[in-house]
Amino acid sequence: MIKQILLKSRPIGKPTSANFEIAPVTIPLIKEGELEVKAKYVSVDPYMRGRMSAAKSYVPPFEVGKAIEGGIVAEVTESRHQDFKIGDMVVAPLKWQEVQVVAAEKVTKLANRTVPPSYYLGILGMPGLTAYFGLLTIGKPLAGETVVVSGAAGAVGVVAGQIAQIKGCRIVGIAGSDEKIDYLKNKLKFDDVINYRNTGNIEEAIAKSCPNGVDIYYDNVGGEISDAVITNINKGARIILCGQISLYNDVETPVGPRPQPTLLKKSALMQGFIISNYASHFPEAIRQLTQWLDEDKLSYQETIVKGFEKLPEAFIGLFEGINTGKLLVEIS
Amino acid sequence: MIKQILLKSRPIGKPTSANFEIAPVTIPLIKEGELEVKAKYVSVDPYMRGRMSAAKSYVPPFEVGKAIEGGIVAEVTESRHQDFKIGDMVVAPLKWQEVQVVAAEKVTKLANRTVPPSYYLGILGMPGLTAYFGLLTIGKPLAGETVVVSGAAGAVGVVAGQIAQIKGCRIVGIAGSDEKIDYLKNKLKFDDVINYRNTGNIEEAIAKSCPNGVDIYYDNVGGEISDAVITNINKGARIILCGQISLYNDVETPVGPRPQPTLLKKSALMQGFIISNYASHFPEAIRQLTQWLDEDKLSYQETIVKGFEKLPEAFIGLFEGINTGKLLVEIS
Repeated sequence: MIKQILLKSRPIGKPTSANFEIAPVTIPLIKEGELEVKAKYVSVDPYMRGRMSAAKSYVPPFEVGKAIEGGIVAEVTESRHQDFKIGDMVVAPLKWQEVQVVAAEKVTKLANRTVPPSYYLGILGMPGLTAYFGLLTIGKPLAGETVVVSGAAGAVGVVAGQIAQIKGCRIVGIAGSDEKIDYLKNKLKFDDVINYRNTGNIEEAIAKSCPNGVDIYYDNVGGEISDAVITNINKGARIILCGQISLYNDVETPVGPRPQPTLLKKSALMQGFIISNYASHFPEAIRQLTQWLDEDKLSYQETIVKGFEKLPEAFIGLFEGINTGKLLVEIS
Repeated sequence: MIKQILLKSRPIGKPTSANFEIAPVTIPLIKEGELEVKAKYVSVDPYMRGRMSAAKSYVPPFEVGKAIEGGIVAEVTESRHQDFKIGDMVVAPLKWQEVQVVAAEKVTKLANRTVPPSYYLGILGMPGLTAYFGLLTIGKPLAGETVVVSGAAGAVGVVAGQIAQIKGCRIVGIAGSDEKIDYLKNKLKFDDVINYRNTGNIEEAIAKSCPNGVDIYYDNVGGEISDAVITNINKGARIILCGQISLYNDVETPVGPRPQPTLLKKSALMQGFIISNYASHFPEAIRQLTQWLDEDKLSYQETIVKGFEKLPEAFIGLFEGINTGKLLVEIS
């Protein structure tokens, strides 16, 4: 029996297991131009919370009663397309479903087999590209500048921070557990780290970690952590709005100190983006990221949860910060 | 007896006449390289409120017990510099003082006498340049886009709105009196106007005035008006932070709905700036603005208050919205 995971109901506030349902599904015979694929690695990403709400955003909402969709690395188990054979590994936006039939044109074959296939959901996939384009095209880091990354131990944060290091910046990471702080400090060699969960005054901690002020803020979390960073920005600072995970489960419109007066005083820029804006430049970015990986300039870590049924739990865990590096579900 | 106007005390909240003091002053004999000048037109501008607070900003605070300083058009009454003669008109940041001695290198001679000298405090001065560079370099308007300007009848707003018209945009102005609305609608021919003082739901009014959404928001006011505009922005919108006059008198840190989630969803940009960032490009901008004036593509209006002693009252009036177009004090 093949299983899929449906959105049973839209979460109000933090998602719970009651918002998901595991259901059996039958799959059709494959037609010309199609592939049958078996999910191997399933990505859980904070942006997916937005699609669980009915509100219109940059991607359409998931439908209640239908399968969740997200980034998946899968193995081809049947092929009716000449470019694909059984055993090929592919990556695509697919249903949370163990086995499914998909049009070959919707998937990308994993050409580079020198890296694990799961990397295409992380450092060589959406999170890595998000870090790359956000930091380089909006942040435009210059050697010697100070870069602060929030959600620094997450899938995007670890890549953004390391690219900032490659560009010669001082890099300060904010994260929420001792394990993450240890990883950032001792493995990735960030210049300084702040554990927001046990730091009384984050604004002062940032001021201390950034004696020359903050030139670039790569924001994955929003909310009070961001308020504290923004009070420390320099003239001409760039704030990259990548994620606002601390606000995604808010039921009311989130309220906080208005950033506009500070942005005005500091001639600073704040810009949102989504990665699809840069689609035409993906190949060059993947080449560059792969080269940095090969040269050991980029370190990469995954937190892997095992078992298809664990998908809802893993997704919910994102909002509890269970992951250091990219959070994935592996399906055997 | 020559008079000057001092900052007697720092305003808490809205400035009052008690924060200012008119005092007699004696002026020194002029030395080589100096000029004695007599103030003719004195500019009152919202940004000066910031300098009355002790907080550090992009310009240093005024000192208590010393003269206020601001943009002034003055006539040369004595000269010990070869480039200036008695009767020349100059513009410079000068003290609020009827007659003063200044180093010739600190002033700019008004070359173009085809426009009234007071224009160099407005459309050909700081407010006009602010409108020009903010709209064109941050907003980057494209023909057919919708531009919303708040504080639309103010010194900066009227120029920003008209440049947007020249660039082929749909222009919607927000202002706070029937007189201003009439001016924007009937004299400047804005496509639509909103009087925020008698509009119940500004967010809905903007949605109605901007059926294709808001591509560019030129923000002079901040606060709730800006909140209402931001909920109506399009994908790829640009928000130009020029002023936040509605917040300048706040005693507490102003709080409101966080704009980051909307900026993120819309891949939108919000950028603060100060006009001195663009100083090297002032001459070309003044040439372009002068040409548009000559071609009657730009209309310009001043609200003139008469009498040196009226300066504090005029400045306070900015926060009550007494002016349509540029607010000036004329000294006879």
